[in-house]
Amino acid sequence: MNDENTFDLPQLYKRHVFACFTQRPPGHPRGSCGALGAQPLWERLGRRVEAEGGGDIGFTPAGCLGFCSAGPLLVVYPEGVWYRPQSPQDIDEIFDQHLKQGKLVERLVMILSR
Amino acid sequence: MNDENTFDLPQLYKRHVFACFTQRPPGHPRGSCGALGAQPLWERLGRRVEAEGGGDIGFTPAGCLGFCSAGPLLVVYPEGVWYRPQSPQDIDEIFDQHLKQGKLVERLVMILSR
Repeated sequence: MNDENTFDLPQLYKRHVFACFTQRPPGHPRGSCGALGAQPLWERLGRRVEAEGGGDIGFTPAGCLGFCSAGPLLVVYPEGVWYRPQSPQDIDEIFDQHLKQGKLVERLVMILSR
Repeated sequence: MNDENTFDLPQLYKRHVFACFTQRPPGHPRGSCGALGAQPLWERLGRRVEAEGGGDIGFTPAGCLGFCSAGPLLVVYPEGVWYRPQSPQDIDEIFDQHLKQGKLVERLVMILSR
């Protein structure tokens, strides 16, 4: 899907992860990734990226990505894959399979109805 | 460069912009995109995306992207283009040329030495 838009530019990262760090207060009607337990998951992912990413993987905190009730949410580019990990094991699978090896972790993909 | 990593997944956005909203206090040794005047630029970009993006363009606030002295910085995916706009005119050019038409705005690209 990306053919028409790819420029001949050096890429800083092979893959770049944006994880939602939004934290709304308890009882907020929209909820948030933070309220759904994102923090320890993102800490784990950040540690693995730093220790094992070899500089090829970017990890950037993001504001609200939408779909707040489906969180915790992250998106991986350039592939444009939206994941909703729920556990440390899910984080490890995304890191080991997708970020390191380029393999889709289908069971954790947020299905987009668009 | 993206061929091996493209999955057959529906894409939420045709292009997704992440703009650094980091604001460090005046005199901080690292500086920040905020200290370099990011806020009115990102407000302008956000308004244009909302009004004219037609739902095809995502705009998400991001934490520190690194390269703090080169800011204000944004990155556009899936192409992985890092831009350093300095003025409202630069914002409009990125929006009109790249985000809407898929054309690189070469003069605003942050050169990566990697």
